Amino acid sequence: MNTDDRAFLDAFHQVGKIGATGHGGVERQAGSAADGEQRRWLADLLSASGFAVNYDPIGNEFGLLELTPGAPYVLVGSHLDSQPTAGRYDGAYGVIAAAYAVLRLAEKWRDSHVAPTYNIGVVNWFNEEGSRFKPSMMGSGVFTGKIDLTAALDTTDPRGTTVRDALDAIGCRGEYDAPNIAAYAEIHIEQGRGMEKEGVTIGLVHSNWAANKYEFLVHGEQAHTGSTVIADRKDALLGASMLVVAAREIADHFDDGVLHTSVGELTVYPNSPVVVPSRVNLLLDLRSADEDVLAEADRMLHERIAKIQVSANVQIERGSAHCWPVTPYQPEGVQLAASVAADLGLRHQEVMTLAGHDSTNMKDIVPTVMLFVPSVDGISHNEQELTHDEDLVAGLTMLTAVVEKLADGALKS
Amino acid sequence: MNTDDRAFLDAFHQVGKIGATGHGGVERQAGSAADGEQRRWLADLLSASGFAVNYDPIGNEFGLLELTPGAPYVLVGSHLDSQPTAGRYDGAYGVIAAAYAVLRLAEKWRDSHVAPTYNIGVVNWFNEEGSRFKPSMMGSGVFTGKIDLTAALDTTDPRGTTVRDALDAIGCRGEYDAPNIAAYAEIHIEQGRGMEKEGVTIGLVHSNWAANKYEFLVHGEQAHTGSTVIADRKDALLGASMLVVAAREIADHFDDGVLHTSVGELTVYPNSPVVVPSRVNLLLDLRSADEDVLAEADRMLHERIAKIQVSANVQIERGSAHCWPVTPYQPEGVQLAASVAADLGLRHQEVMTLAGHDSTNMKDIVPTVMLFVPSVDGISHNEQELTHDEDLVAGLTMLTAVVEKLADGALKS
Repeated sequence: MNTDDRAFLDAFHQVGKIGATGHGGVERQAGSAADGEQRRWLADLLSASGFAVNYDPIGNEFGLLELTPGAPYVLVGSHLDSQPTAGRYDGAYGVIAAAYAVLRLAEKWRDSHVAPTYNIGVVNWFNEEGSRFKPSMMGSGVFTGKIDLTAALDTTDPRGTTVRDALDAIGCRGEYDAPNIAAYAEIHIEQGRGMEKEGVTIGLVHSNWAANKYEFLVHGEQAHTGSTVIADRKDALLGASMLVVAAREIADHFDDGVLHTSVGELTVYPNSPVVVPSRVNLLLDLRSADEDVLAEADRMLHERIAKIQVSANVQIERGSAHCWPVTPYQPEGVQLAASVAADLGLRHQEVMTLAGHDSTNMKDIVPTVMLFVPSVDGISHNEQELTHDEDLVAGLTMLTAVVEKLADGALKS
Repeated sequence: MNTDDRAFLDAFHQVGKIGATGHGGVERQAGSAADGEQRRWLADLLSASGFAVNYDPIGNEFGLLELTPGAPYVLVGSHLDSQPTAGRYDGAYGVIAAAYAVLRLAEKWRDSHVAPTYNIGVVNWFNEEGSRFKPSMMGSGVFTGKIDLTAALDTTDPRGTTVRDALDAIGCRGEYDAPNIAAYAEIHIEQGRGMEKEGVTIGLVHSNWAANKYEFLVHGEQAHTGSTVIADRKDALLGASMLVVAAREIADHFDDGVLHTSVGELTVYPNSPVVVPSRVNLLLDLRSADEDVLAEADRMLHERIAKIQVSANVQIERGSAHCWPVTPYQPEGVQLAASVAADLGLRHQEVMTLAGHDSTNMKDIVPTVMLFVPSVDGISHNEQELTHDEDLVAGLTMLTAVVEKLADGALKS
C-alpha cells in the first residue's frame, strides 16, 4: 500500500473516533456536537490545501477549488452524519474518499500545470440520515429544490430543537450560494450482501429501487388497562402492532429479496403502563426493484388496513407519503464508470441501490455517477458495519479516476 | 342539595381547573407543577380548619387533626396525581371527598363536644398513577414498607429527573413520621360499567383482581430498513408487535370480562425511520378475578413468546415482574359499609376492583374500607371520564358515615 493510501485510511479511521460509541460504532446525528466536530475536521483538511470552505443556508458544507475561473464545478461527496449507534462507514467513507480524491487531483493538476475543464469540490450534505430531523436527504433535497428551505429549517427533533437552532449551535448555517454544478459523483458502502457474494469490488449503480414510504396515525381511545373490558377498547397500539405484522406478512408473500417492508419508527401516546394507548404514529415503508410488485404490495397493505380498522376497533389515517418509482442514473455515467473500472482492473458489476442516497436527488439535476464498495455480511446501520481497508482503497482509486474524467468533461451534454 | 354538598362540589370542580387540558380533562402527573399546586390547595383547605399538614420522605401529604391526645388515627384519602390527558375524577374525587368528610366530622365533634375514639386525618398519596415514575402506588407502597424509600427517591422519569428532585422542586419532600394508623378508608370512581349497569350507587369493594404485570425486552439487531433482506432481519419491533397481538388473542380466548390483557407502554430503539429496531421495551399485563384463568393465560403467553422468538428471529427477555393474587379486603369492613349504606338508603352491592388502588396496599396493614361510585360508560384514564354530581354527593355522605363509625372504633380489633 502506498503512503497516499495509508494517509487516507489513517484519516478515515481518525474520523471514526469522533462520536465513537465504544463498541466500534459512532453516534453523530445531524446538527449534534459530534457533527460539528467532524465538519470542522473536513473544513480544516480542505482549507489547508487552498479549498474555499462555505456553508449554504441548510448547512451543506462545500469545499471548492477554482482552477479554471468561471467554469462550473464537478462536485464529489456524501454525508458525515450518522444514525444513532451507527457504523463508521455509512456516508463518512464517501465524504473522506471525496476529499482525498480531489486533493490528489488538485495536486496532480498543480504539478502538471494543467487546468481541467471543470473546477472541483467536495460536498458534505446535511442530514442524509433523517433520524433526528425528518425527512432524510434533507440537505441535498433543499439543494435540488425538492424540499422547501424554510420548512426544513423549522423542522424540530423530538426535544423541540429546530434545524435552524441546531445548525447555529455548531456554526454551520451559512449564506453560501453554490456555483453551477456540471456533474456529481458519490461513493458509498453497498449496505447489502450482493457484491460480497459475487466477489465484486466496485458496484456501478444504474438505478434505485422504487419505494412507498408512509406515515400512519392509528387513532384509538384512552382507557384504563385494568378496568376497561376488552369489548369496549379502542387500542391504538393493538392496531399499530397488527399493521407492523401485516407489513412483514406482505413481504413474506413474495420471494426473499423481492419486496422489503419495515416499520423503523413507532411512537405511542400516552405511553403509560395502565392506559390503553389513544394514538400511535408510525413510519412504514415498502421497497422493491419491481414497480408491479410494489403496486401489488401497496394494494395488499391498504386492504389489510381496512380489515385492521375493524378488528382492532381503531381508525387508521394515512399522513405524509413519499413515493418514488425506479429511476435510472444516466447510462452514460454508468458506462463511463465501467470503462474506468476496466482500465483499473477492478472487478465491477452494475447494481441497484435499495437505500436512498444524496445522489438519488443529484441525478435528477446533473449527470451523476454513483459507486459502491462491498459491505461485509451486508451489515449496516449497526456498529458492526465493516468494509475492508483494501476495498476502501480500491474505491478511492476508482472515484479519483472517475472524477478526473468528469472534470475533463466526459459527461458534457 | 344542601349548602355543604354544594360547597364540596364547587371545591371538586375548582380543583378540576388545576392542570386543565381544555378538553374536560387534567394533566397533573406526580411531582409536576400542577401536582404542587393541588397539594397546596389541599394544605390550605385543611390548615384553615386547624389540621396539621405535613409531608413524609416520599411526599405523601398528611393533614391530621388530633382530638383525642395520643390515640391512633383513622386515615382517609386517595391520590391527586393523574395520568397524562386524564379525567378529573380518578383519585382527586377520593381526596376531596376525604377532606370534606373529615371537615364535617371535625365540625360535628367540636359542636357536640364529643371526642371520637380515634383521631382523624386526610392523606394524599404520592404517585399512585405511575405514568411519570414507576411503579404505580409508590407513596402508599413506601408507607406500607413494600417499596424501599431510597430506591423510590432515585427513580427517574423519561427525562432523567429523580423523584427526589421532582418532590424538592414542588417543596413536598418532608421528614414527617406519621403516627399509628387504626383504620383506612378510601372512595374512588369505579372505572368500569358494572355499577352503572346494575343501577348501584355505592360499590363495596370486597377484593381485588389478580394480576401478572411483566416488563419484556425484545432484542433484535440494528440494520438498514432499505437494503437488509428480510431473511437477515432480527426486527425487535416485529417481535414486540407479535407479542401485543398475542396478548389480545389470549384475552379473546376467554369470555368477555374474564381476562383483561394490555400493553400500555412500548418504547422502540433507536426509533429511526430507516433502521430495523434493535430493542423494544414493553409493559404487558394480564388481569382476572379468577386465579385459574390467570394461570392458564400466563401459560399461553409464555408459550406464544417461545414461538415469537423463532418466527420473528428475536430474543425476548422477561424483566421485572409484579404479580398478585386475588386478595380480600377485611370482611368486617365490607359488612360495616353495607350496614351504613342500608341505613342511608343507598343502593349498594359488593364489587371487586380491577384496578390497583392505594387501599390495596393499606388493607395489608390495617382494617380498610374501599368504596366505589359509578363511572358513566365506564370511561376512565380519559378526558371524558365522568361521575354524576349526585353520585359524588352520595359517595361523600357514605364516606362520612363510614369514617365516623371507624373513628368510633367500629373495626377495632
